[in-house]
Amino acid sequence: MPTHPLEEVLHPRSVAVVGASGTAGAWGYSFTRHLLDYGFRGQIYPVNPNYQEILGLKVYPSLIAIPEMVDYVISCVPAGEVLNMLAECLQKGVKVVHLYTARFSETGRRQAAELEQEVLRQARKSGIRLIGPNCMGLYYPKEGISFAYDLPKESGGVGMASQTGGGAAVFVQLAAMRGIRFSKVVSYGNALDLDESDYLDYFSQDPETRIIVVYIEGVKNGRKFFDTLRRVTASKPVIITKGGRGQSGARAAASHTASLAGTARTWRAVVAQAGALWAENFDEMTDLAVSFYFLPPIHGLRVGITGGGGGPSVLSADECEEAGLEVVPLPPEIREELKVKAHPIWDWVSNPVDVSILGGFGVTSTDMLQMMANNPSFDLLLANITEVPLARKEDSILRFRSETDGYIRIRKESSKPLLVVFGEKSLGVEDHNHWRWQLTSELRTKYIAANIPIYPSVARAARAARKLFDYCQRNECQHY
Amino acid sequence: MPTHPLEEVLHPRSVAVVGASGTAGAWGYSFTRHLLDYGFRGQIYPVNPNYQEILGLKVYPSLIAIPEMVDYVISCVPAGEVLNMLAECLQKGVKVVHLYTARFSETGRRQAAELEQEVLRQARKSGIRLIGPNCMGLYYPKEGISFAYDLPKESGGVGMASQTGGGAAVFVQLAAMRGIRFSKVVSYGNALDLDESDYLDYFSQDPETRIIVVYIEGVKNGRKFFDTLRRVTASKPVIITKGGRGQSGARAAASHTASLAGTARTWRAVVAQAGALWAENFDEMTDLAVSFYFLPPIHGLRVGITGGGGGPSVLSADECEEAGLEVVPLPPEIREELKVKAHPIWDWVSNPVDVSILGGFGVTSTDMLQMMANNPSFDLLLANITEVPLARKEDSILRFRSETDGYIRIRKESSKPLLVVFGEKSLGVEDHNHWRWQLTSELRTKYIAANIPIYPSVARAARAARKLFDYCQRNECQHY
Repeated sequence: MPTHPLEEVLHPRSVAVVGASGTAGAWGYSFTRHLLDYGFRGQIYPVNPNYQEILGLKVYPSLIAIPEMVDYVISCVPAGEVLNMLAECLQKGVKVVHLYTARFSETGRRQAAELEQEVLRQARKSGIRLIGPNCMGLYYPKEGISFAYDLPKESGGVGMASQTGGGAAVFVQLAAMRGIRFSKVVSYGNALDLDESDYLDYFSQDPETRIIVVYIEGVKNGRKFFDTLRRVTASKPVIITKGGRGQSGARAAASHTASLAGTARTWRAVVAQAGALWAENFDEMTDLAVSFYFLPPIHGLRVGITGGGGGPSVLSADECEEAGLEVVPLPPEIREELKVKAHPIWDWVSNPVDVSILGGFGVTSTDMLQMMANNPSFDLLLANITEVPLARKEDSILRFRSETDGYIRIRKESSKPLLVVFGEKSLGVEDHNHWRWQLTSELRTKYIAANIPIYPSVARAARAARKLFDYCQRNECQHY
Repeated sequence: MPTHPLEEVLHPRSVAVVGASGTAGAWGYSFTRHLLDYGFRGQIYPVNPNYQEILGLKVYPSLIAIPEMVDYVISCVPAGEVLNMLAECLQKGVKVVHLYTARFSETGRRQAAELEQEVLRQARKSGIRLIGPNCMGLYYPKEGISFAYDLPKESGGVGMASQTGGGAAVFVQLAAMRGIRFSKVVSYGNALDLDESDYLDYFSQDPETRIIVVYIEGVKNGRKFFDTLRRVTASKPVIITKGGRGQSGARAAASHTASLAGTARTWRAVVAQAGALWAENFDEMTDLAVSFYFLPPIHGLRVGITGGGGGPSVLSADECEEAGLEVVPLPPEIREELKVKAHPIWDWVSNPVDVSILGGFGVTSTDMLQMMANNPSFDLLLANITEVPLARKEDSILRFRSETDGYIRIRKESSKPLLVVFGEKSLGVEDHNHWRWQLTSELRTKYIAANIPIYPSVARAARAARKLFDYCQRNECQHY
């Protein structure tokens, strides 16, 4: 397979930040600083006639003034200066310009839209590719390029194309907290030149990318998008969130990225027909990405559930069933084992396992999950740790740590998919400092380090599992 | 109105813990310790022939051995000892027994179910009321009675009747983190004597309770329940979550509280006909309780939204619209004001307000929310602070703190309902110690202290707002 044209574009030997700034807080400052912070190994050229030095780097008055060639430009200048800048880019052999620069067609103004078209014409004529305009550009940790502070510096297998930059940065943060790392993320805004189809196509060939996520507000060439999507889904899972589904959302999308939005129903149908996965929002996108990232294929729906007291167990069963999983009764072999190990409750304990009735009867939640892992009646396992520790600090810490160690051991020894549910909480200052939530953070960290996916609720875990199952029914499924 | 019979039962002058224990971690220890920790002001009598002293309290070998009368008994003895204990209760003038004791009909065993019926007969004959069996009993912070560690010691206006005890304790924790406090919570398990209708009836008359929440797995007398519910909803909002909606959930409910569950469709219809509010799970129950607790009535659907960058704004519009709110365009008066204050973006900024385009143009997110608060085109306000701070630490802290102060001022000066969205996050150890999440906790605490409800997502806030609107259409609505 020939190298994708984007491959060279995304491996620049030098980056110039045009409109660089020495004022902390300005974007021309941040883009420069990110190159330093994330360890970009090529040349960094801040460009601004009003500075001599920014962050210890020599500043050039113009692109032309840079002594060497420049591969990649980050443009932070106002829209009115872009055409002049492009002319300089041509002289310096620039391959790609990321236009952070905004206020083009998304403003809804005719003149701005015309300027945008002129920018496109000039870039095409010069053989320069454009990312954007009106976007955050590239987060590519392996190359040391980033569009936000505090994103992970390590790489992983998820590639993202996103029509929102702030949203993409939030997504990277949230997904990172659940263990995901990224190959590269492109925020592409108005998609003037390179568009969603180009990025999809690139990710499908990119050996660093195993799973593709896309946030999209609209496409200009529907046929091209559909054909590309169908081709890409044949090799890698593609998860899509669509913004601008309703009347007001479409209006917002027009003023955000000048996108023609299309109805929700059309989009759901297109995504399904192309074999991609629909995610309602970034939360569900995270759930699905986490599932593909950590879980082996799911080939059956029979789920074994541990955890939660009585009421939460009842609701777990409801929510799993409502999501399309099968909460099967405990099989006779497990009943027999319980007769021996926990006789007083052998016929009472059930699936889901109400952990509050186990105490002192010879089996723990770990034992129960182990039995279900060993038993062919279950296709997947769900451990619900949502329960807030209600017992004494000392007892809770012991119990939860030992359960975590047990579950992690089961994950290592069993080939069955294991999903762990960990409620997210609205912590206030006092909660933040409470041992209970510090314990929760400690346990989550352990699960993630053991490559176990965590989900914020049973319902969300169950829906993700069902979608992964459906996907594996239609596709050659593997552990991505 | 005559005093409700439960009123006396719930204000005991003395409590005996039968089956008290000196072993930390045992429930007979915890129930005793809670009375001390939460500051019960009456007499506390631990009962156990094997101890002289527990937690500094004199222990009695039997109920009979207690020199004074006993109002309230917490029973931690095994099921087989309950009948003997009840005989002693009769002698000591006990008014109510909370049977933490379990393993009755919920085990599915005939003998256990028969014993349960015998317990009921003997209690009725003796004029003793029963809470439970198979439940956690009472959390009544004002009286110093609790069933779990670390619940709030302050009181508030929400009363809860719950067929799950662990679930109720979790609910109290989660709701407390979002600013709710409780009048009293009853976990009532198998509902052998006092049942859901009795508690509902009590809460409707209880001046300490303004909002009622109920978790229910099944009712034995459907007619009585429906009539009670309809009567109660005439005076106070009742929010109901139903466990055991599906096949496996119903099976789990049977083994949890021996409940006959009933289908989801029937239950939804019953709840709606009776004028109560249906909550799918504890998350939605919290959202609704928070809404009634903090918001004035919602009499219109036109929502003004600030916050989030471009993509999140687009999705906010979609999610509000999908929940049945109206995301109306900015009215001409606000456009005129923007012409003066922020001319370069006067025709670009929209509702939802994409905060990422405001920078440097003369208006802040607070200004925008203020304009919408002042303008009659909006019935309610939604401020989305879900965006993870992506800028530098120093800039982020300044911006988010100043926005918080501004929003809180608007809440104080405006009569419009204001809902604040604050994403919940799955923090790991390193996140926990990061300034970003410490800042989030600080801001949440400020909002709650200002009586502003927070929600974990735009979709959940919007759904809660819509349900509150619908409720206010049907009922004389007030600020509860």
